[in-house]
Amino acid sequence: MKKKTFPLAKAYTLLEPGPVVLITTSHKGMPNIMSQSWHTMMEFEPPLVGCVISGRNHSFDALKATRECVINIPTVELAKQVVAIGNCSGRKVDKFKRTGLTAVEASLVQAPLIAKCYANLECRVADTRLVNSYNFFILEVIKAWIAPAVKSPKTLHHRGKGEFMVAGETIKLPSHMK
Amino acid sequence: MKKKTFPLAKAYTLLEPGPVVLITTSHKGMPNIMSQSWHTMMEFEPPLVGCVISGRNHSFDALKATRECVINIPTVELAKQVVAIGNCSGRKVDKFKRTGLTAVEASLVQAPLIAKCYANLECRVADTRLVNSYNFFILEVIKAWIAPAVKSPKTLHHRGKGEFMVAGETIKLPSHMK
Repeated sequence: MKKKTFPLAKAYTLLEPGPVVLITTSHKGMPNIMSQSWHTMMEFEPPLVGCVISGRNHSFDALKATRECVINIPTVELAKQVVAIGNCSGRKVDKFKRTGLTAVEASLVQAPLIAKCYANLECRVADTRLVNSYNFFILEVIKAWIAPAVKSPKTLHHRGKGEFMVAGETIKLPSHMK
Repeated sequence: MKKKTFPLAKAYTLLEPGPVVLITTSHKGMPNIMSQSWHTMMEFEPPLVGCVISGRNHSFDALKATRECVINIPTVELAKQVVAIGNCSGRKVDKFKRTGLTAVEASLVQAPLIAKCYANLECRVADTRLVNSYNFFILEVIKAWIAPAVKSPKTLHHRGKGEFMVAGETIKLPSHMK
């Protein structure tokens, strides 16, 4: 999937609809992936993203130690991999091997991009004040990639317990909202 | 739209897919509504929701003063009202009058429920530590309502500048995730 850089000021348009994302980290030479839906935009530019990464996840330690990750946005074609990633732990399993996903080198962070995800956001941890209380990390997106060929991404939206809503049609309304 | 109470432990299933929400407040006897997409679940039970309410919004002052609000979840039938609410300010306009939406008394907070929204979450502010830095409020859901007749809610998901993705089909996968 051919990708180009995407303006940071438009990164919010990718995360605002609430898709399931795959967060990659790399710690002590070992890449890892987790499925995640608890995230929100917090600022347009520089783009800030708040996200909850539970201390039960192997990615928590990697993110705390390296302060870097990539937010990869999958579409419905990757639904099986999204679930498989959520069903095992990086403590025991190499999730790239398990799922057959390809890791691609990022430009500014050690964590890898997932090739088959149509968008990838390279992030650095910007604020850890709420990590102890809520496992809540605030990330700054420092580089964004998109596959321009994907016009209307069929993102996945978790409804709990393995039920996913798949992105439907897009409507355009005369809004003054950003 | 007939509603019944909804278990707090399942509140995350409503917000996790990332819908646009209508946040209502009531301050000095004046109810107000804002459209909002920057929110995330932060805890299952008691359900905690983090959300960004910009200081430019009239609702910011109401929420800071009263520490109460309702998160109402609209579906595509209310798309025009969602946009109209985002296009004007509660400083100048009574948004219930402007949009013709009906306010219904909540059970535990002063802020009203929006009758036509299929789900309503009564909230109290639980943590304001990140309000000064990011306008980020952490809310605790203390009472939840749902319209059981709405089986597959066509929620709206903002893609920026008035483009909304409408919830599509639901798929079920063998996930161990909550």
